[in-house]
Amino acid sequence: MTLAPAEAGKSTRSVAVVRGAFQVPGFRVGTASTGMRYRNRLDLAAVVSDHPVSAAGVFTRNRFAAAPVRLCRARLERHAAGIRAVVANAGIANACTGEEGLRRAESMATLAAEALGLQPEAVLVASTGVIGPQIRLEPIREALPELARSLRPEGWEDAASAIMTTDTRPKTAHTRLSFGGSEFTVGGIAKGSGMIAPDMATLLAFVATDAPMSVEVLRHWLRAGAERSFNRITVDGDTSTNDTLIALAAATAAYPVIRDPLSPEGRCFGEALTAVLLDLARQVILDGEGATKFVALQVTGAPDAESAKKVAFTVANSPLVKTAFFGGDANWGRIVAAAGRAGVPLDPDRVSLTFGNVCVFQNGAPLDGEDLEARATEVFRGKAIDIRLDLGVGTAEETVYTCDLSYDYVKINGAYRT
Amino acid sequence: MTLAPAEAGKSTRSVAVVRGAFQVPGFRVGTASTGMRYRNRLDLAAVVSDHPVSAAGVFTRNRFAAAPVRLCRARLERHAAGIRAVVANAGIANACTGEEGLRRAESMATLAAEALGLQPEAVLVASTGVIGPQIRLEPIREALPELARSLRPEGWEDAASAIMTTDTRPKTAHTRLSFGGSEFTVGGIAKGSGMIAPDMATLLAFVATDAPMSVEVLRHWLRAGAERSFNRITVDGDTSTNDTLIALAAATAAYPVIRDPLSPEGRCFGEALTAVLLDLARQVILDGEGATKFVALQVTGAPDAESAKKVAFTVANSPLVKTAFFGGDANWGRIVAAAGRAGVPLDPDRVSLTFGNVCVFQNGAPLDGEDLEARATEVFRGKAIDIRLDLGVGTAEETVYTCDLSYDYVKINGAYRT
Repeated sequence: MTLAPAEAGKSTRSVAVVRGAFQVPGFRVGTASTGMRYRNRLDLAAVVSDHPVSAAGVFTRNRFAAAPVRLCRARLERHAAGIRAVVANAGIANACTGEEGLRRAESMATLAAEALGLQPEAVLVASTGVIGPQIRLEPIREALPELARSLRPEGWEDAASAIMTTDTRPKTAHTRLSFGGSEFTVGGIAKGSGMIAPDMATLLAFVATDAPMSVEVLRHWLRAGAERSFNRITVDGDTSTNDTLIALAAATAAYPVIRDPLSPEGRCFGEALTAVLLDLARQVILDGEGATKFVALQVTGAPDAESAKKVAFTVANSPLVKTAFFGGDANWGRIVAAAGRAGVPLDPDRVSLTFGNVCVFQNGAPLDGEDLEARATEVFRGKAIDIRLDLGVGTAEETVYTCDLSYDYVKINGAYRT
Repeated sequence: MTLAPAEAGKSTRSVAVVRGAFQVPGFRVGTASTGMRYRNRLDLAAVVSDHPVSAAGVFTRNRFAAAPVRLCRARLERHAAGIRAVVANAGIANACTGEEGLRRAESMATLAAEALGLQPEAVLVASTGVIGPQIRLEPIREALPELARSLRPEGWEDAASAIMTTDTRPKTAHTRLSFGGSEFTVGGIAKGSGMIAPDMATLLAFVATDAPMSVEVLRHWLRAGAERSFNRITVDGDTSTNDTLIALAAATAAYPVIRDPLSPEGRCFGEALTAVLLDLARQVILDGEGATKFVALQVTGAPDAESAKKVAFTVANSPLVKTAFFGGDANWGRIVAAAGRAGVPLDPDRVSLTFGNVCVFQNGAPLDGEDLEARATEVFRGKAIDIRLDLGVGTAEETVYTCDLSYDYVKINGAYRT
């Protein structure tokens, strides 16, 4: 929604996204168990391409970026057209680990490259898990042969399991697109169940496509897609030291390489990628720590997109609003009051608020009626809550997705290390 | 801490603040029960001065300011030297009530003025409670004679009870100051147990002094004092539509009116007022919804005060950090990661973090040792946690006060209206 108008595309075509098993021609995926922190489960995954691909990444804006993030940023600056693999481990995040952490991230990439028969700088790494401890290289080295042996086109679902931390479900999504008589796939996996958790719940997502394109086209649409998906969700307002989203586009022989992001083929890919990212983002929210509800909050009638986003996130991150979601309490007062402290100039007399299709607050005042309260409560008792907050002053709008704040959120995060 | 250096005063004299019963010469305080929302309890309070006083107020920055806030702002602009009373009710907040709400706030002031024998514009009003419904004037009218009859110098504690909503304890604080051979009192009451709660937990605070001063002096120190107290606490980051802090200074014959805020007498008063406000603010945190811990978070070594404050509030409002407080988990990773997303340029390699007197993180890396973890956990298991986060780049510092995020916070706010 924050794309510049010239880039936004006016297509209303909806893209069908499917969860579960998928393959992306040109990619194989492997998994293994290092035992570094977890017992008896997969905790190492690799996405490997048969040939060099175009690669792009978006990463945490946290100032304490973890070592793997720093490594990826550097490699994507120099080798974005020569990447062959992404290797990720779960259990230890390699964050706040100083220069030694960076050395170990590089060693992890080098060890993986050797096991996979690649150049070291063709490998990206990602980590998620506890902050502070150093990752251990020996368990990774020992698990890499198993990883290499397990590489297969249908390995994505296992990889989605291997990168989980506090997640309760693996997250996969894919879609198909076609242009010029050829068909292509965009598919990916994600993990993350708080937006952060220095302990555990970093966001990681890896997507791949066989639609051939330049690094610039991939980068363009990855940024735009992330802005409309992972940058529009919030569990608790926190962002991790390790948040990483990487996209890989294999060059296939079937079609000439897309070089213009705004060409019809470029836009077609952009829509498909955004749809896959948005579906993965929704799954992250649905699996939010302790979440019992999925909330889509749309702010409309804003003077500009920035204001709409600010209001939406202020409301979505308000603990009072989120506990009301949990309690099934159609508490318009908390939503209006949170909007009022967003730091955006508002004219209270023009603000309206709708739950589902029940308008509860119009032009600055609550609407009346016993029936209204009952109908609004009905909306809040559901598993998915749609909220529209109209500021009544402009035409800009933004949608963010969030979940409720439950006892289990406190339990998961209050008791995690003890 | 954000006072300009020229105004900050270098006195290290600590001001002794006392809780419990007090009187302020020149003021009488009354209470009554309206039954508007609560049964069998006081819910109406008035602070009345024997003569016109200097008055000043600071109010919510929420764009949806409630009707009583709008009334007070207007009256303090025109009549700040002619105020005689503040009347407050608990139960219904008169917020989001449109023009009719404003009319009722004015009627409430007028009715109170009649009962107290004052000019209508000499009365300020404040409300706290549920957002949305209109206050009912009839119950107030009926209770006002009881309120007028109960006026007495020692009524402050009852008034502190009358303005409570989800508070579990009345909050009072006072101190004494002397200059020119005379002794004066600064005393006040407060309520509020979430920083907001459109339902309930607005912050209200009323302070009075018999130290004689101009409106300008009172306004100067009220703003400065609020900045160092109520503007440095957070329970959940939310701010109410009704937050109101009003100060009244009676002119007594004992001493010439203070006209310069930076005179020795002005500074002396400023210190006393700030100490009283800070103590009231601490009580609000200690009574925070579901709070089990009191946390003082000091950010030092910041490039400027604004950055220090931003980092401090980002950490203090992080649900992940607050659940770690609740769990007694000395989770430095969450604090560091929250600091990293505050939007302030940080050099991770210069950041240090100390719990109590246990330094756990130095120059960007966690310190080692079994014993260290145990000692840090010991600090977190206490009722009061002192945290110092040093950014290592400048000399600015800020302290904010907060509490933990517990099961009971979710319970109180998730189940309140149901």
